Amino acid sequence: MPATSPPPPGTRWRLDLEYDGRSFAGWQLQPGQRTIQGELEAAVERLVGHPSRVHGAGRTDAGVHARQQVAVFDTTADRSERAVRDGLNAHLPPEIAVVAAARVDAQFHPRHAPHRKTYRYTWLVRPSRPVLRRGRCWHVRYPLDGEAMQRAMDPLVGTHDFSSFRAAGCSAPHAVRTLEAAQITREGDVMNLEVQGTGFLRHMVRILAGSVVRVGRGREEPVWLREVLAARDRRAAGETAPAEGLVLHAIAYGVGAAVERTMERDG
Amino acid sequence: MPATSPPPPGTRWRLDLEYDGRSFAGWQLQPGQRTIQGELEAAVERLVGHPSRVHGAGRTDAGVHARQQVAVFDTTADRSERAVRDGLNAHLPPEIAVVAAARVDAQFHPRHAPHRKTYRYTWLVRPSRPVLRRGRCWHVRYPLDGEAMQRAMDPLVGTHDFSSFRAAGCSAPHAVRTLEAAQITREGDVMNLEVQGTGFLRHMVRILAGSVVRVGRGREEPVWLREVLAARDRRAAGETAPAEGLVLHAIAYGVGAAVERTMERDG
Repeated sequence: MPATSPPPPGTRWRLDLEYDGRSFAGWQLQPGQRTIQGELEAAVERLVGHPSRVHGAGRTDAGVHARQQVAVFDTTADRSERAVRDGLNAHLPPEIAVVAAARVDAQFHPRHAPHRKTYRYTWLVRPSRPVLRRGRCWHVRYPLDGEAMQRAMDPLVGTHDFSSFRAAGCSAPHAVRTLEAAQITREGDVMNLEVQGTGFLRHMVRILAGSVVRVGRGREEPVWLREVLAARDRRAAGETAPAEGLVLHAIAYGVGAAVERTMERDG
Repeated sequence: MPATSPPPPGTRWRLDLEYDGRSFAGWQLQPGQRTIQGELEAAVERLVGHPSRVHGAGRTDAGVHARQQVAVFDTTADRSERAVRDGLNAHLPPEIAVVAAARVDAQFHPRHAPHRKTYRYTWLVRPSRPVLRRGRCWHVRYPLDGEAMQRAMDPLVGTHDFSSFRAAGCSAPHAVRTLEAAQITREGDVMNLEVQGTGFLRHMVRILAGSVVRVGRGREEPVWLREVLAARDRRAAGETAPAEGLVLHAIAYGVGAAVERTMERDG
């Protein structure tokens, strides 16, 4: 595993990435599929002249966007930060951009280093289809009660067993996570759920979004979400919200956040 | 002209529209071109069974987006508000949506009724290309000084002769307009110029954006923009900023704003 094996000789590069998830079968390399990791590894090989694994801070699902994803790769090639950034961008498709490239300590691993992630889930709440937010939201035609949704989310902030909000295929050894913040915001016909934490289970944000929307439309009372949490059973929660409404918004390192070593796909 | 001729029998409908300007040669009907007005008139004819002219609050240029554009059409057909909204959406391409449809007074004309428009111009300020804002911003690779840009814009607020900020082809009888507000905002690598007023000249917002950006990158002092205004000469101002950074953000009617009867294409 990259975190425990000795680093290869050369330089470890950190990449800060933005991508539009619509064009990809998710982050993780899959044979015969167009993935973000796959595009990055191809671009890195063209830039440095040798293959190199690219490791990300999290494996976003097909359709999930990133405003900030963090990844690393190692190379023996000598390049400036600008040359790595611009060179990779020249080899990448327009749906992925390297926003910044920087040399980092050879031990730095974006998933294992302590960090805080912010995800944003977006609804467009109106009868008519999305245009300017097409592919970037979950379109719901019924009104949502944002205050009820906030009341429902509040008791989930803190350290809990989030088994009810984890995908069936999630391979994490346990489901205890710390949700540091969960905020419902509204601007016009756009609503957001923004969550912050040091680690998320597979599909956790999308199952939270697919559950709290049931409160928003009046199908459940706010207290229901706390009951779902207590059930520790995926079947107690709502549906998994569509991927295209989710954005990995930010990842902050060196913030004193307790590290949770999770190898699972998250979001 | 629709404002002075007697209204045809039947109902005048107000449409609140959202569109992605990238796919169109602008608002205004042009033979052989895909335009927003053209798509709307085709959809109206399919819905009501007879041709009907669609009049908008302003003729946005090719590439300019609208979060809220307002238009009207007349019909003798009897339909519910929901049927007009959903029926037009069924006939429109995905880049245009009717967000609301409502019966209005037969005298209401979206350009001639007193109103206040808000335009938003957006820059993405970073070395790497846009991804999530692709086609919705002006990408600049140099830093911009937002405070200097605000200081430059401040003296333009008020009633002035904006001849320096009007396109060569602008057919307005005079260039006196009232800029009610001009605000520079920044969030991360995104900067916006948001302007409010009761009327705008052709390309006015884009020439303002293309001029104030010269102050932002340090090519001109903030006081320069006031000198450009005083010159009353298009050649004194900066370039016309790219259309794709501009959004017609909102139009408010019935706000007591003095009407300026302008027949020109604006924005």
